[in-house]
Amino acid sequence: MGTFVKPALVFLFIFYTVCGYEAIGVNGYPKYNTGSGIVEGKLNVHLVPHSHDDVGWLKTIDQYYVGSNNSIQGACVENVLDSVVMSLRRDRNRKFVFAEMAFFHRWWIRQSPEIQEVVRNLVASGQLEFVNGGWCMHDEATCHYIDMIDQTTLGHQLIKNEFNITPRAGWQIDPFGHSAVQAYLLGAEVGFDSVHFARIDYQDRAKRKVDKALEVIWRGSRTFGSSSQIFTNVFPVHYSPPNGFHFEVNDDFVPVQDDPLIFDVNVDKRVIDFIDASIIQANVTRTNHIMWTMGDDFQYQYAESWFKEMDKLIHYVNKDGRVNALYSTPSLYVDAKHAANESWPLKTDDYFPYADDENAYWTGFFTSRPAFKRYVRVLSGYYLAARQLEFLTGRKSNGFNTFSLGDALGVMQHHDAVTGTAKQHTTDDYAKRLAIGASESEAVVNSALSCLVNSKSSPCSTTSSLFNQCQLLNISYCPPTEEDITEGKNLVVVAYNPLGWNRTDVIKIPVNNANLIVKDSMGNLVEAQFIELDNITRKLRKFYVEAYLGISPKSAPKYWLYFQASVSPLGWNTYFISKASQKGSSASYVAKMDIPLKETVEIGSGNLKASFSSKTGQLKRLYNSKTGVDVPVQQSYLWYRSSSNFGQNSGAYIFRPDGSSPVIVARSVPIKVIRGPLVDEIHQLFNSWISQVIRIYKDKEHVELEFTIGSIPIEDSVGKEVITKMTANMATDKVFYTDSNGRDFLKRVRDHRADWDLNVTQHVAGNYYPVNLGMYITDNKSELSVLVDRATGGASIKDGEIELMLHRRLVADDGRGVGEDLEETVCVGSTCDGLTVRGNYYMGIHKNGDGSRWRRTTGQEIYSPLVLAFGHENQKEWKASHTTKGTIMNPNYSLPPNVALITLQESDNRGVLIRLAHLYEAGEDADYSTKTKVQLKEMFAGKRIKAIKETSLSANQGKNEMKKMTWNVEHDSCSEATPIRGGPVNMSNLIVELGPMEIRTFLVKF
Amino acid sequence: MGTFVKPALVFLFIFYTVCGYEAIGVNGYPKYNTGSGIVEGKLNVHLVPHSHDDVGWLKTIDQYYVGSNNSIQGACVENVLDSVVMSLRRDRNRKFVFAEMAFFHRWWIRQSPEIQEVVRNLVASGQLEFVNGGWCMHDEATCHYIDMIDQTTLGHQLIKNEFNITPRAGWQIDPFGHSAVQAYLLGAEVGFDSVHFARIDYQDRAKRKVDKALEVIWRGSRTFGSSSQIFTNVFPVHYSPPNGFHFEVNDDFVPVQDDPLIFDVNVDKRVIDFIDASIIQANVTRTNHIMWTMGDDFQYQYAESWFKEMDKLIHYVNKDGRVNALYSTPSLYVDAKHAANESWPLKTDDYFPYADDENAYWTGFFTSRPAFKRYVRVLSGYYLAARQLEFLTGRKSNGFNTFSLGDALGVMQHHDAVTGTAKQHTTDDYAKRLAIGASESEAVVNSALSCLVNSKSSPCSTTSSLFNQCQLLNISYCPPTEEDITEGKNLVVVAYNPLGWNRTDVIKIPVNNANLIVKDSMGNLVEAQFIELDNITRKLRKFYVEAYLGISPKSAPKYWLYFQASVSPLGWNTYFISKASQKGSSASYVAKMDIPLKETVEIGSGNLKASFSSKTGQLKRLYNSKTGVDVPVQQSYLWYRSSSNFGQNSGAYIFRPDGSSPVIVARSVPIKVIRGPLVDEIHQLFNSWISQVIRIYKDKEHVELEFTIGSIPIEDSVGKEVITKMTANMATDKVFYTDSNGRDFLKRVRDHRADWDLNVTQHVAGNYYPVNLGMYITDNKSELSVLVDRATGGASIKDGEIELMLHRRLVADDGRGVGEDLEETVCVGSTCDGLTVRGNYYMGIHKNGDGSRWRRTTGQEIYSPLVLAFGHENQKEWKASHTTKGTIMNPNYSLPPNVALITLQESDNRGVLIRLAHLYEAGEDADYSTKTKVQLKEMFAGKRIKAIKETSLSANQGKNEMKKMTWNVEHDSCSEATPIRGGPVNMSNLIVELGPMEIRTFLVKF
Repeated sequence: MGTFVKPALVFLFIFYTVCGYEAIGVNGYPKYNTGSGIVEGKLNVHLVPHSHDDVGWLKTIDQYYVGSNNSIQGACVENVLDSVVMSLRRDRNRKFVFAEMAFFHRWWIRQSPEIQEVVRNLVASGQLEFVNGGWCMHDEATCHYIDMIDQTTLGHQLIKNEFNITPRAGWQIDPFGHSAVQAYLLGAEVGFDSVHFARIDYQDRAKRKVDKALEVIWRGSRTFGSSSQIFTNVFPVHYSPPNGFHFEVNDDFVPVQDDPLIFDVNVDKRVIDFIDASIIQANVTRTNHIMWTMGDDFQYQYAESWFKEMDKLIHYVNKDGRVNALYSTPSLYVDAKHAANESWPLKTDDYFPYADDENAYWTGFFTSRPAFKRYVRVLSGYYLAARQLEFLTGRKSNGFNTFSLGDALGVMQHHDAVTGTAKQHTTDDYAKRLAIGASESEAVVNSALSCLVNSKSSPCSTTSSLFNQCQLLNISYCPPTEEDITEGKNLVVVAYNPLGWNRTDVIKIPVNNANLIVKDSMGNLVEAQFIELDNITRKLRKFYVEAYLGISPKSAPKYWLYFQASVSPLGWNTYFISKASQKGSSASYVAKMDIPLKETVEIGSGNLKASFSSKTGQLKRLYNSKTGVDVPVQQSYLWYRSSSNFGQNSGAYIFRPDGSSPVIVARSVPIKVIRGPLVDEIHQLFNSWISQVIRIYKDKEHVELEFTIGSIPIEDSVGKEVITKMTANMATDKVFYTDSNGRDFLKRVRDHRADWDLNVTQHVAGNYYPVNLGMYITDNKSELSVLVDRATGGASIKDGEIELMLHRRLVADDGRGVGEDLEETVCVGSTCDGLTVRGNYYMGIHKNGDGSRWRRTTGQEIYSPLVLAFGHENQKEWKASHTTKGTIMNPNYSLPPNVALITLQESDNRGVLIRLAHLYEAGEDADYSTKTKVQLKEMFAGKRIKAIKETSLSANQGKNEMKKMTWNVEHDSCSEATPIRGGPVNMSNLIVELGPMEIRTFLVKF
Repeated sequence: MGTFVKPALVFLFIFYTVCGYEAIGVNGYPKYNTGSGIVEGKLNVHLVPHSHDDVGWLKTIDQYYVGSNNSIQGACVENVLDSVVMSLRRDRNRKFVFAEMAFFHRWWIRQSPEIQEVVRNLVASGQLEFVNGGWCMHDEATCHYIDMIDQTTLGHQLIKNEFNITPRAGWQIDPFGHSAVQAYLLGAEVGFDSVHFARIDYQDRAKRKVDKALEVIWRGSRTFGSSSQIFTNVFPVHYSPPNGFHFEVNDDFVPVQDDPLIFDVNVDKRVIDFIDASIIQANVTRTNHIMWTMGDDFQYQYAESWFKEMDKLIHYVNKDGRVNALYSTPSLYVDAKHAANESWPLKTDDYFPYADDENAYWTGFFTSRPAFKRYVRVLSGYYLAARQLEFLTGRKSNGFNTFSLGDALGVMQHHDAVTGTAKQHTTDDYAKRLAIGASESEAVVNSALSCLVNSKSSPCSTTSSLFNQCQLLNISYCPPTEEDITEGKNLVVVAYNPLGWNRTDVIKIPVNNANLIVKDSMGNLVEAQFIELDNITRKLRKFYVEAYLGISPKSAPKYWLYFQASVSPLGWNTYFISKASQKGSSASYVAKMDIPLKETVEIGSGNLKASFSSKTGQLKRLYNSKTGVDVPVQQSYLWYRSSSNFGQNSGAYIFRPDGSSPVIVARSVPIKVIRGPLVDEIHQLFNSWISQVIRIYKDKEHVELEFTIGSIPIEDSVGKEVITKMTANMATDKVFYTDSNGRDFLKRVRDHRADWDLNVTQHVAGNYYPVNLGMYITDNKSELSVLVDRATGGASIKDGEIELMLHRRLVADDGRGVGEDLEETVCVGSTCDGLTVRGNYYMGIHKNGDGSRWRRTTGQEIYSPLVLAFGHENQKEWKASHTTKGTIMNPNYSLPPNVALITLQESDNRGVLIRLAHLYEAGEDADYSTKTKVQLKEMFAGKRIKAIKETSLSANQGKNEMKKMTWNVEHDSCSEATPIRGGPVNMSNLIVELGPMEIRTFLVKF
């Protein structure tokens, strides 16, 4: 038999040859017209080519960059940048936006001058536009605002230095919910006209599509209102193109086929597909401009695969004429939106929590990988201090500097890094980067402190240091303090205070001898308290020192030594610890552990008292003898059973409890009581893997709770999400307050959203909010506040309650890509154990309206603890050659209590970068929510300011160069109060005024 | 707990920054030195970048080109060519080789003049080298040599026209075994210096590695010996790079990482990997040159992904200095081999069959998709005839021409097309292309025939035609012959003879009336014979006409009308069929079917007789009364049970019977006998799905066997591979002969290979060889020959036997990529049935040494049947205005019997392409294996030859421009006879001399 085919097919062929499409130029090759631009009166489809390049996720940042480990994910950012540049050169109408400077930096420094010149031209012409332009696309739930500013500045400086360009668009397409601080601070105050993203609650999105309210004017700040608003574009589906318009090399798509010599010519079909998809989107969008995000995760591995399809679509769609397609960017799109003179809905507060389905609240990542989150937060504060010290003694042109820590922290803010949603091996890589950065900055700090205290040589030139620091203090590992103090030597402790205020803190170090005395820099004895090291810490120390440092530590120290230190703002103080000359002559107090006998145990030798039931071992009430505030409050540990068998699992992103009530860890716990002159402690053992130490320092009016949680058992195959719950006798009417990125406090109402009628599908997970600074509840009498030491998730599931999720260990993946159970394990040799997490949170009680000062001030102290350095020296010799106490400020000056110095950083070529932040929102505190002043002359007493320039938040343009778009807002009452802002800085007096919540950024030349 | 990382890692970082690699230029960016070239005295590793782009396989050729249907395979050849060009521009040392012109042509005609200019420069500089340069990379087992020449010429003409370049290297890297004709004809005679490929028998390869004999001098022709030898490079593993050096975008490989700022710098490791892999290969290779094939199937989707890694490897490996790496091409490699002055092993005959494992003989594809193979072969002959007719009447500048059929046939020679190893949907696409090409060429033929016979208008200008042709004649579907002949009209049959000899053939057409008479062009009655249409053909007609044409045919015609036609060489004749004026006046004979009564039935009214047992219904003996040759011979059908459960399955590529004896279909079959003046027939019904008609034409000295096989039942889940087996009473001593691509005959010895001691693991599959023309066996008295009508597989499993595999229907995939069972089904609506195959083979018996003439002459007749066109016209009017009989040659001239005109083709701008082929090997026939002469003046009697130029086989260079490399061959006896070749053609007499097997190619201007 022959195999003849139906002749009908033959006629198709004839048809094709007759109806050749008009793209064919006179020489037979196709010339596509891609340069239509915007056409008035038509629906304009803005094609925005982009590649979403996670700065680490399934692979490490370097693996993503070089394209290794492709068995996990085929992704090579070098390919993206190489091939995009080649494709942009092929047609000057083509455009591309790029966001992640951590990647761009890797690429840029390895390009030849020729390619660099090409790229400079592409940037200058607008073909290549940087969006966001930070080091990464930071998360908005688990990042501290200072980190967000720093990482944005890092990227913006690169762009400014290399291209003299200021990014105009915020491009937060992937983060899992969006914060108020992002909108007004990292948006408007950075100088962005707009912010664009994909992820908002699915119910919210559904309503906004009906209302054509996906695009809004967002006023994220109650304090600043319209003066810090931003045009916000929420994508109708995701940051990928409409279905069928995804053109990645080797992916399965239908190319536009217009070659009449090839079968399957489909131009008409594809044009109709395009128009159909456009109209669907136009129907939920105001104005005749819609944006198509032409990209996805790590796309444009071979950019031409995308551009050649877009070229054809633009050509044929515009030839058809029903709609107009064009290459565009977010800025061009927003310009078009602005020109349309449309009115936009108003959006306030934020877009948390994010859910993409009824059982899929992305509130687990608020807490995922709590140890890693803590490491990031600790180093964030440390980076701030290290840069101060680096500035104070001069940045070294050789040797170490703080860049590697800034680089690492910049990466950590990525929305799959500090979020805890990267794979384990990537997280290990993150930790390694932090460790490298920390190690280099530690060298900077040691060297700078050596310089500062060395009165003999000024300016300081040495880079050597006698100091050591201890990164594992929290588990009692600190070789220089554990070491025996030999004859004629003292343990010298230098404490540096990165805050702009005087502070008095209790320093706590592990020692092997209770027969020690502490003297201050004047030689006066300082009161000390010794507390025996507990077994839990001892166990942690043994396992984790080996796990983290690879060395078996010698036997644990016997005591914690507590003593009180007082340090000037931006200053230092020195303490000398030596063996007491004879036994008993010590001014120190060796605390004993007691088993309580009375029914109620009370601790707190200062104003604040906490009372416990000796029967249950649990907190009963807090009472402040000075303010009279008295709050009955219980505190306990519970855990949610993670859902892992009913469709949506709980995982790294998603918190989905199985619906049962959380399991109470212990209704009654054994406690021990420790009292002393500096601190009282209650030690509680909730079970074999949860313990807690509650401390009240004599001079502090809050409770410090140090928890140790782990290893969470999962032998029962049940994931567990551990919370601490504080239950106060307060009628809170569903209301609680959580911070936004550690800055503003936002009002939360349980089972309620301001923007739509919430259909409550997850009563617990759907009421969790991110917490970075703290949260509080109030009734008409009191406030109960909690501050945290890292990013976490918190909620108030019943009136009077505050809960924080502290640790999670899961047995399933939640299906959002990471593909691993969140099941953190630490190994020493072949012995592995679920990760144990230790940390602090802090409780305060205040009269209604008074809690703010404690939250703001203590928040700064938690973020910026004293930096401690240790050495063994002869006290006399040391004193003779060193300045034991000092400050760079005028000794009589300190910053106002409502202002923090959040950046002081030597910048390579553009001067010194200074940021001052007002800490209070408008109306937050009766006294402190006011305009305040900083006297730069007093702050930098030893230096002369030669020039000062105020800039945008990311320091990439002059404040006076910043342009603001005006927008029409629907139902705008125009009744908001004008926010208070400081005036220009006068060179003669150099006084910086700050209104509430204001952050002012300066480039200063000394 | 913090998550600090072992500080050991910190030191790594420091190390990296200190030990930056020297590729870093002064400005900090890497500059790789890729231009070392060959270094004497070192091992030179020739990196040959290539992409193996199947012209259809898992996807159709167009899908592969445009990159659609990527869910099957991520492959877009447009990307390969686009991105390779971009990458070659980036470094002038980079090189790339490209083979498949069917793809290149699609790409080239759509490039802008600017890109075309770039590519011309890349080709001119040698950066882009065309290898093979045919339309596809043809198969070597299932292609006819004329098709191989045509498809190679098609590609070479494109290259010549656009680049004025002559490819130097044969690049047959993937075909499944390699033929003698490839070596000497499509290799040396095309002008290639070398041929390169991957697939030879695994036992052969193992031995060659030990002997360093992978690279050989191959003399594929017994006739031409060293004068048509070629350097042959068999790869040691495959055509991919050594493990770990595969750099496709998104694939999982370890990139060379030399950026000291990025973790995982691995330059030293990768250099060592490279050297290790080089040495492994050097140990099996002569000279200090080895080739790495840097590519694989459809690689270089983003070429830069490969080139950037190769750049780094070349730079760092050469910096290391132990071996030398360079970008290279097959020509440069062979130049280096040549310069080394080494001696090489000699290889003769071919590389069939191919096995890649002990149970994996790739001998199934010799037969896979027999209907498709037949379609290709039918159209191959038709294309030859159509081009003759196109030339005779002048190629049309508008309207249809034969290009689309040449294009389609060029694609069909691909080693996954005619082989039957493509997916079903791809095969459907192939058939569609053939149908389109056939349809256009049919229009050309109809139009040309109209012109030829139209004596009134010369030169002919009309493109309209009154003729129709019938592509489904074999299943009795031919509307113009079935149609009632109305009053005053005749059925006009024009027969064109594409052979250079006079021929007399029986024409067989379906008619509805036995009361018809046939007259020749002179008006003489022609003897006719009517045979009732059998039920099997009737059934086929009903189902397959609807399946192939989409129309329900009217009821089947009642008779076959046979009549004998005689046609001049390159000429035509006209026959007129009309209703007999009165009943019974016809000179026609209506044959009756008889049930035989005697024990032996003999048929054959001419010299040849065939006798059958009436008891078993089967053939018993053949006897030629003229020559006296008398061969007892049985013929029967059997099938092998395909292995589908023991590791290696039988599949599209691989023939693996399950080890049991083949199943005999019937030991006794019902037969019917038909006798008549023109032909005797025996109809045998072997079972419900195998039947056969055996014909002996009065004037022919061979038996024609028409088989109808299908639908092969697989309800028992057993794949079946159906053979016909002829068992002669001959002592053949394991020896049989099969053709090479329809040209030379090669001696085969069962269970034996010339090149190594064969370990026989598959007694049946391992003895199968490709058959395109035929096969034969001999004893000291007789020859038994079989000729075939398409590519198939054949064997002689026992002495005296010949078997041909005719059809296969399988239930498993053989794991070589196609991923489908070879299970061909044909559907009409929802009724589907396994494919039925109908075809012919031919048996001849001759005195020992005399069979060659029959095989050669009949072979040409089978390949080039009469072209028939039909119309209904008034005989008188027609005769008055038309030339009913003629030839373009001098009517007294015909080609010598040992010469065939295998190409006569109008070539767009370079004249007329003529190829003449001597049909006999040296020593094959006592009379015909001699130098012979063709008189072009007589051949083209009506035209004047203005210029003639002899060229290489593919017509891309003058014969006198061809250069030959000389090679030292080990143990070369130097005793071969000098082959006979024709001398230069003298313009005055225009006589072309041809020695045995010689093919001479000319460009002629008339």
